[in-house]
Amino acid sequence: MSQQPPRTDTVRPLRANTVEHWDIEVDVVVAGYGIAGVCAAIEAARAGANVLILERTGGWGGAAALAGGFIYLGGGTGLQRALGFDDTPENMATFLTAALGPGVDQAKIEDYCAGSVEHYEWLVACGVPFKAEFWGEPGWEPPHDEGLMYSGGENAAPFLDLAKPAPRGHVPQFAEKKIGRRSGGYMLMKPLAETAAGLGIAVEYDTRIRRLIVDDDDRVVGVLASTYGKPVAVRAARGVVLATGSFAYDTEMIARYTPKLSGRPGAAIEEHDGIGIRLAQALGAELAHMDASEVAVFGDPQLMARGILVNGRGQRFVTEDTYPGRIGQAVLLHQDNEAFLIIDEKSLEQALDTVTATPFFRFPPTWVAETVAELEAEMGLPAQALQTTIAAYNQHAEHGADPLLGKKPEWVRPLTGALACYDLRGFTAGFTLGGVRTDLDSRVLHVSGEPIAGLFAAGRCTSGLCAGGYVSGASLGDGSFYGRRAGKSAATG
Amino acid sequence: MSQQPPRTDTVRPLRANTVEHWDIEVDVVVAGYGIAGVCAAIEAARAGANVLILERTGGWGGAAALAGGFIYLGGGTGLQRALGFDDTPENMATFLTAALGPGVDQAKIEDYCAGSVEHYEWLVACGVPFKAEFWGEPGWEPPHDEGLMYSGGENAAPFLDLAKPAPRGHVPQFAEKKIGRRSGGYMLMKPLAETAAGLGIAVEYDTRIRRLIVDDDDRVVGVLASTYGKPVAVRAARGVVLATGSFAYDTEMIARYTPKLSGRPGAAIEEHDGIGIRLAQALGAELAHMDASEVAVFGDPQLMARGILVNGRGQRFVTEDTYPGRIGQAVLLHQDNEAFLIIDEKSLEQALDTVTATPFFRFPPTWVAETVAELEAEMGLPAQALQTTIAAYNQHAEHGADPLLGKKPEWVRPLTGALACYDLRGFTAGFTLGGVRTDLDSRVLHVSGEPIAGLFAAGRCTSGLCAGGYVSGASLGDGSFYGRRAGKSAATG
Repeated sequence: MSQQPPRTDTVRPLRANTVEHWDIEVDVVVAGYGIAGVCAAIEAARAGANVLILERTGGWGGAAALAGGFIYLGGGTGLQRALGFDDTPENMATFLTAALGPGVDQAKIEDYCAGSVEHYEWLVACGVPFKAEFWGEPGWEPPHDEGLMYSGGENAAPFLDLAKPAPRGHVPQFAEKKIGRRSGGYMLMKPLAETAAGLGIAVEYDTRIRRLIVDDDDRVVGVLASTYGKPVAVRAARGVVLATGSFAYDTEMIARYTPKLSGRPGAAIEEHDGIGIRLAQALGAELAHMDASEVAVFGDPQLMARGILVNGRGQRFVTEDTYPGRIGQAVLLHQDNEAFLIIDEKSLEQALDTVTATPFFRFPPTWVAETVAELEAEMGLPAQALQTTIAAYNQHAEHGADPLLGKKPEWVRPLTGALACYDLRGFTAGFTLGGVRTDLDSRVLHVSGEPIAGLFAAGRCTSGLCAGGYVSGASLGDGSFYGRRAGKSAATG
Repeated sequence: MSQQPPRTDTVRPLRANTVEHWDIEVDVVVAGYGIAGVCAAIEAARAGANVLILERTGGWGGAAALAGGFIYLGGGTGLQRALGFDDTPENMATFLTAALGPGVDQAKIEDYCAGSVEHYEWLVACGVPFKAEFWGEPGWEPPHDEGLMYSGGENAAPFLDLAKPAPRGHVPQFAEKKIGRRSGGYMLMKPLAETAAGLGIAVEYDTRIRRLIVDDDDRVVGVLASTYGKPVAVRAARGVVLATGSFAYDTEMIARYTPKLSGRPGAAIEEHDGIGIRLAQALGAELAHMDASEVAVFGDPQLMARGILVNGRGQRFVTEDTYPGRIGQAVLLHQDNEAFLIIDEKSLEQALDTVTATPFFRFPPTWVAETVAELEAEMGLPAQALQTTIAAYNQHAEHGADPLLGKKPEWVRPLTGALACYDLRGFTAGFTLGGVRTDLDSRVLHVSGEPIAGLFAAGRCTSGLCAGGYVSGASLGDGSFYGRRAGKSAATG
């Protein structure tokens, strides 16, 4: 008489000796066909492993294929050099340590920076196209198919003086006009998925990982998945790679770890339900930086750089010409999710004449006023709260200076005449950056400090480069970089 | 031939079938003899269990015995009523939900508030003395043996208008002058330790918990401890209670979860190394709010209420007459750990004439200046940064108002004449509030959502009432309250 099929509604590990029948047997199982998964699969296959990717949706791509496509690379990549930018791994590490902390995994930052040039070349060799053109304007992304851009505030205060500014946001070139799914992220995933297919890597779509299967020594030896409600036991002779993404869409985990993101997931997909993290936790995995969040603010950087941002008390709080994701974090995490963008008519006109990748952020202002006092009243601020802010800003702006926050002179001009104000309160969304702790070989670390045998992870189900801060391209960056490591480690395991 | 003794240098669980010899056999083992541990032990013993407390130091007390002694209680306790303060569980829950969030465990808040009056009576019945005297001045603690005080900003903006203000910081009465260890916390622990002794509860001092022992069904059935380097296997027929405190002194966990506290532990003891959390994680326990931190700022509340606090940009950012721990969190978590306290000569003299529990915070000012412009320059602020702040503050203060932050009229007066400024940059310290997730019966929850059989926890190794914010007394409060639950649950398990 046959046993009951194993439960698929718990994240508790399943004992291998209870598995009656293995539906599939391979060397390496990769859960999730996004950026970390595809890179893991490619490297595992190249290391000689028989690889199977399990993907719960009907196609490859994950959140990566929908992303803008920044990959954070530097230290002197071919693209940086072709465009005349000097950079070194040390310079890059100095910047990232400051921008992504406090609390960064220093060994990981240094390892990532040291391997960045090689990783760029690996992506190019896989067919990822980068156009040798630099976009130097403020923006969330390049508006066309430019391949390189500042994407972390490298050329803005306070980092400007800490490390030599170098743009490191590498964007795959769009093959066609930017319509629908044909984003830079799609153009990253497509050649990688083709590379994987060329290596004969098998994929089971519509197949969702449910539990890890462990032997009597607690080594991970397979996964229990499900497809259309049917359990599938997959034996992984060498290792399992978790590449299942963030927990941005798990409302309970969000409430427990990153409550400020409650109700405002962004730049993630609904499949990002934290399953990989929970499966690893059930085996005693250590976590890190579960509160860390990427945060986008729905403002156009060309307008923000030319105006001033004030908080709910009418005070400036962030260098307006920095990476807009840094502004988003400042607003949500430190200013009670309250911000107003104020810009004068002349600067607004100039800003609206520029090219932008985010025209949908160019909505009409909330208020227009002839005087600061009038605007202050419209905004509901106490008398003098805004007037004093603008008077102090203007006094220094007359001399092209911003001693309070260090905005660069090119963006500093007194606010005069009629003023427009955008009410950006509550205008943020983001995704989570915390996850399981891994070592440089992408081995999942047990809370004892030792690796969990047979278990590897990469991408946003891990705590990668970012401890608190963020730069655009860090997720596709550490996901692809440590995805490769995970694949190699699992294959040679 | 005898086996090797089990390793004590890993947090991995030990299998019961490998234990050759049980050194001690009891019903309930409680790890840690602080506030949560003593309450757990008392209730377990009263429920009929044979209880053993393991304590790694040479005496009872934990961090509790060194604490000021606030226990956050309300909803109409005998002490509140005796002193003429109205409160209800609902009113208390409204306040705590706002003050301790976002992301609070709502069921736990409501449960705690509903049980608060009974818990007060339980403590009194155990011999904890509360003097029916109210201290209404700003301060970190009552300066003498007063029994009740505001300890969470209940009577300050923004909470003032959200819930009816009621003081809930209950402080055990000092038996003698406040010297050495005879703090309110000591006077809480002493009668409880005596109650435990009266119940015949056994204690092994100098005995440190190392590993949990689990049976083949992963039920916790004991602990492996060590004393003077020798392993001790203790069988717990009914359950194990973890009451081992926070992770404030584990530098690696701090870097991974609460990096802003790195190098600045406060109001904790070196034994708070996170061991309870790690032992539970090794069994798949869920965590919550690992980034949450209590933060103290080294400023005297009598001075802060009468002056203004500005950040590193010369801007006000927090209601100066609120709970000083709220100020500490604002400074460390949101203002880059930068704050300056500015007060004029007349208000400083008034403040220094008051009684304080923290005379060591009344050090000489960093700068004294005749004018705001002069002080601004001394502080290294850009021209106008401070002048505009004080001009705007004074304009409203003339009318006794603070529309920017809502400081109460009694503390609002224009800053005039010579000014003193205290440089409080870096003047913070704190302890961690995150830990394992528990249910209302103090059962440790597995990441699957189910309880881990045989395992209970309370106190600062758990995520209790506080998700982000803090009120003084929350730790002795939820530690004692859910410590009792843990003991009851373990005994009846």
